Amino acid sequence: MTPIRSQYGSSADLDIPKVLARIHEEVRPLIGQGKVASYIPRLACVPANRFGMAVATLDGALYTEGDTDELFSIQSISKVFTLNLALEALGSDLWKRVGREPSGNAFNSLVQLERERGIPRNPFINAGAHVIADVVLSHTSNARQKLLEFVRDRADNQAIIMDEEVAISERDAGFRNFALANFLRSFNNIENKVDDVLDFYFHQCALQMSCADLAHAFLHLANGGICQRSGESVIKPDRVKRINALMMTCGTYDAAGEFAFRVGLPAKSGVGGGIVAVVPSVMTVVVWSPGLDEKGNSLAGAAALGRFTELTGLSIF
Amino acid sequence: MTPIRSQYGSSADLDIPKVLARIHEEVRPLIGQGKVASYIPRLACVPANRFGMAVATLDGALYTEGDTDELFSIQSISKVFTLNLALEALGSDLWKRVGREPSGNAFNSLVQLERERGIPRNPFINAGAHVIADVVLSHTSNARQKLLEFVRDRADNQAIIMDEEVAISERDAGFRNFALANFLRSFNNIENKVDDVLDFYFHQCALQMSCADLAHAFLHLANGGICQRSGESVIKPDRVKRINALMMTCGTYDAAGEFAFRVGLPAKSGVGGGIVAVVPSVMTVVVWSPGLDEKGNSLAGAAALGRFTELTGLSIF
Amino acid sequence: MTPIRSQYGSSADLDIPKVLARIHEEVRPLIGQGKVASYIPRLACVPANRFGMAVATLDGALYTEGDTDELFSIQSISKVFTLNLALEALGSDLWKRVGREPSGNAFNSLVQLERERGIPRNPFINAGAHVIADVVLSHTSNARQKLLEFVRDRADNQAIIMDEEVAISERDAGFRNFALANFLRSFNNIENKVDDVLDFYFHQCALQMSCADLAHAFLHLANGGICQRSGESVIKPDRVKRINALMMTCGTYDAAGEFAFRVGLPAKSGVGGGIVAVVPSVMTVVVWSPGLDEKGNSLAGAAALGRFTELTGLSIF
Amino acid sequence: MTPIRSQYGSSADLDIPKVLARIHEEVRPLIGQGKVASYIPRLACVPANRFGMAVATLDGALYTEGDTDELFSIQSISKVFTLNLALEALGSDLWKRVGREPSGNAFNSLVQLERERGIPRNPFINAGAHVIADVVLSHTSNARQKLLEFVRDRADNQAIIMDEEVAISERDAGFRNFALANFLRSFNNIENKVDDVLDFYFHQCALQMSCADLAHAFLHLANGGICQRSGESVIKPDRVKRINALMMTCGTYDAAGEFAFRVGLPAKSGVGGGIVAVVPSVMTVVVWSPGLDEKGNSLAGAAALGRFTELTGLSIF
Repeated sequence: MTPIRSQYGSSADLDIPKVLARIHEEVRPLIGQGKVASYIPRLACVPANRFGMAVATLDGALYTEGDTDELFSIQSISKVFTLNLALEALGSDLWKRVGREPSGNAFNSLVQLERERGIPRNPFINAGAHVIADVVLSHTSNARQKLLEFVRDRADNQAIIMDEEVAISERDAGFRNFALANFLRSFNNIENKVDDVLDFYFHQCALQMSCADLAHAFLHLANGGICQRSGESVIKPDRVKRINALMMTCGTYDAAGEFAFRVGLPAKSGVGGGIVAVVPSVMTVVVWSPGLDEKGNSLAGAAALGRFTELTGLSIF
Repeated sequence: MTPIRSQYGSSADLDIPKVLARIHEEVRPLIGQGKVASYIPRLACVPANRFGMAVATLDGALYTEGDTDELFSIQSISKVFTLNLALEALGSDLWKRVGREPSGNAFNSLVQLERERGIPRNPFINAGAHVIADVVLSHTSNARQKLLEFVRDRADNQAIIMDEEVAISERDAGFRNFALANFLRSFNNIENKVDDVLDFYFHQCALQMSCADLAHAFLHLANGGICQRSGESVIKPDRVKRINALMMTCGTYDAAGEFAFRVGLPAKSGVGGGIVAVVPSVMTVVVWSPGLDEKGNSLAGAAALGRFTELTGLSIF
Repeated sequence: MTPIRSQYGSSADLDIPKVLARIHEEVRPLIGQGKVASYIPRLACVPANRFGMAVATLDGALYTEGDTDELFSIQSISKVFTLNLALEALGSDLWKRVGREPSGNAFNSLVQLERERGIPRNPFINAGAHVIADVVLSHTSNARQKLLEFVRDRADNQAIIMDEEVAISERDAGFRNFALANFLRSFNNIENKVDDVLDFYFHQCALQMSCADLAHAFLHLANGGICQRSGESVIKPDRVKRINALMMTCGTYDAAGEFAFRVGLPAKSGVGGGIVAVVPSVMTVVVWSPGLDEKGNSLAGAAALGRFTELTGLSIF
Repeated sequence: MTPIRSQYGSSADLDIPKVLARIHEEVRPLIGQGKVASYIPRLACVPANRFGMAVATLDGALYTEGDTDELFSIQSISKVFTLNLALEALGSDLWKRVGREPSGNAFNSLVQLERERGIPRNPFINAGAHVIADVVLSHTSNARQKLLEFVRDRADNQAIIMDEEVAISERDAGFRNFALANFLRSFNNIENKVDDVLDFYFHQCALQMSCADLAHAFLHLANGGICQRSGESVIKPDRVKRINALMMTCGTYDAAGEFAFRVGLPAKSGVGGGIVAVVPSVMTVVVWSPGLDEKGNSLAGAAALGRFTELTGLSIF
């Protein structure tokens, strides 16, 4: 039996540069609004008035608008990369150690974790990401290098690095993360040394990437797990589906419901101001603007993504 | 600018009867498994070995398989109907009284409600549905009649009734609901008498419908809010989008993440064993089987829906 | 073996009237401070500038100072009376239905109750008092009359009544209590109809008594359970010890630790502004002043009791 | 005005050796029951069948029964010593950083801490003890030495040491404590390095003392803060009252209500099986037996203390 559609159809009919330019114009009043993340100096000094947007399509095109070459700290967006690696390493056994449901709590809350005996609700809250980091550590001789290689290959950019200063600042300010990871360890849901797990975690968050880098690096998630350049399999289709579903329900902190409504696409945000959205079978859309709304998502970025799916009809609903 | 697709395309190429028959065959070993809801006698006595499935398409076709004419208690599925009514009555002011995010807690938990000062996380947890019922009561002279008319019109079936015995049993066993509603009242988030609100709520849950009824009754949510028969507007497109997004992130109790992965469609379930899914621009899919999994969703039903989107390619991801 | 002391010795050497007068003088600047309970009209209209104090000794003396004959709503102080009755009815089986430990939560919180599956932490938080009321109801043909008789006998004052207007106002404003009691019912920890339990509960809170009434009514708790007038046993010594221990650790809402430090005596407070303290083997001390501190205890009253134990050396520590 | 009693009178009339022997006989069936703490090897290997009891009176006598010279790990009992030091260092400003009320939660719960924004409920739950340890660290050049000196002086035994192996084991198993301390640090309620705070904390818990040592070391808390040997002031009377009140309401984990009833004295327990009780103006009573009840208090020890106050009439109630 043939499916009635190859998912979302093609982007051939769309004048994407025009769409992006129009969105940039429309959201201009929002750029610079919101609060730039300030808990570490390196993030606090990023100029608030930046805005960039990039679209990478399955047919190989890249469209950019605004500050798309500027590097920013991808922060929690990195949780999607490590989830890729952990799923490849453990397969569905991973779900014995981390849940797959939205949390309804702040991303760094300990309350739910205590009630649920050390099993984080999903891989995108911090505790879940610690477990994922632990899994990657246990299955790799050099986790940081492995992650770098994965991201560089996905983005087709060997110049991508982790910002050591950000990683160190994260560690020095990361008491809540130390609390969470030790708590997980007390439930035996961390196998490696807490310091090692968090060292890896702080480094993954410190990945410096551009909108264009991220648009490429997520493209296999729009392509059923296949690398759009080489045609080789990066991750199994079933796991792609799982990752996209998790981004849809848990990818934007405590605003997943709002994103489902406004954007209607699987998306993952970071406090560096980046948001990546995946249009299955069609494209990835990345937006970056450092000012955050009260839920911790890029204020102008969320508005831009909402307009993008409205203008292109790419929303699910 | 033209959207690149009219959402999901058409169902013309699909041999739906064959799909439904195949699914029925495949899930047969699951039918009768799980637990039939037993907290009230009328639900407890429903035979576990029932299974029905119905698909209604935008082009007017209805496809059925199994026990599709049998009436069952729609229970929480009714929350979508009352949300329709409340949104039409209050518009976006409704969101001052109820949130739009997944809860991460049991559907009838009071904990989160206390922490969030009487604002339920979403309209589909019980507390949220009480607020919605209260809104409908405040804006209608005869809420129960109004709801009946709405549902009968949507389903194009004037014979639909509320099962008085179910409603009475619900009330007599509904201490947790009385706790929730009084709690809401203590935060001034219920305007009417608690007894009146719950009387309406227990009656909405007691709606008796068939798979076919529900497939028709949800079709406007697959059609941008337009009645597929008359062409008249039932609810604004923006509100349809909101309702579908809410079903996607909060429609299946504490299994929304799992549903997003397995089914990949907005869906709403009830402890009567029914589940309704919406394929925007294409169709509705309804399944019913009384045995529930540990999260309270129809066990065979969830499996059937998962297979449906796999076989038809209608999943989002 | 003879105990080394008959508890606290005798009050013979104390010039209690002088102590009370001095305290009245000292706390005068505090009288009228704090907030008078305002959630029902009848309590809200009590003048804030009232202050009364009464001491009843085991040797039969009564000492009064200030507004000691004025009647006030004893509110939560009544929980000690019903605990007396419930313990007599059920004995130690009572502790299967209610705990004996401090709660660390607001007196009307539902959170802990949910976590502990419907067993209230102690008989003095509202949920615990509902269970106690339920027990009394189950073991008495006319609970309200039974309680009235008990209190009138203890206080040796047949004129004591329940203020019907207060009881009705409590009911009309008591949504949180309805929430709690229905919640208990959902855990099968209420046997009677919720409305009946709360009707009794609201009436017990509506008892109108004076400082002098209360000083007499608690005297058996300073006397090992023996009525100081008739010499008959009111309640077994072991149960007296239990009640006093509960007042010590849980009698003053979320300020039991502070009371243990400042006052160092078993005490029970009510939002009507009354506080009763028991000096085992010696006396009872009652204070009343309607202005409450942020924890819900009489502001001037707590200060007066603290001074009383300092001046008399009657504190435990 | 003269207080009516010098607190609890004198112990002159009591035949304490006979009382202790009788209690030993009575509780013999309980010795060896319960669970010996097993989370670190050094504690796990303590023989369960030990029982010791010691009484030190203000007039200089020491009475012992059973295994009173055997050294055991005092664990949480040490929290009273560090509270002494912290109160001397900071005075009442200490209460800005830690509360004084019972918690109603497990001693190592993070939930309440999150809700109350990093202010532990009292100094005897682990988080509270971490804050206390932090205060001592901030006000002393060599905190560990300072504590050792304080304890040796109080116990009049220069041979008291900290068991380094216990301290190291605690650290290696102490993930929950690391979680708590990092959590406190995230709320800025820890000033020193988390590792330093916990290193001190684990060492305080590792103090090895006998029943006799502890009986002497707590005697100033029965003596208004005055050293019974030298007559010098160890801690101000007001602070003694505060410490005793805290032991009364929070000294025995989640069994303070039960202890108030059964024992009726300020007491502090540890998972090493020790319990210290203070009879103000009269004596200290120490009991040790390693088997713990489900709340974490010595099972035979609690029974022994209960019998002690019954037989001597020294209970408050």
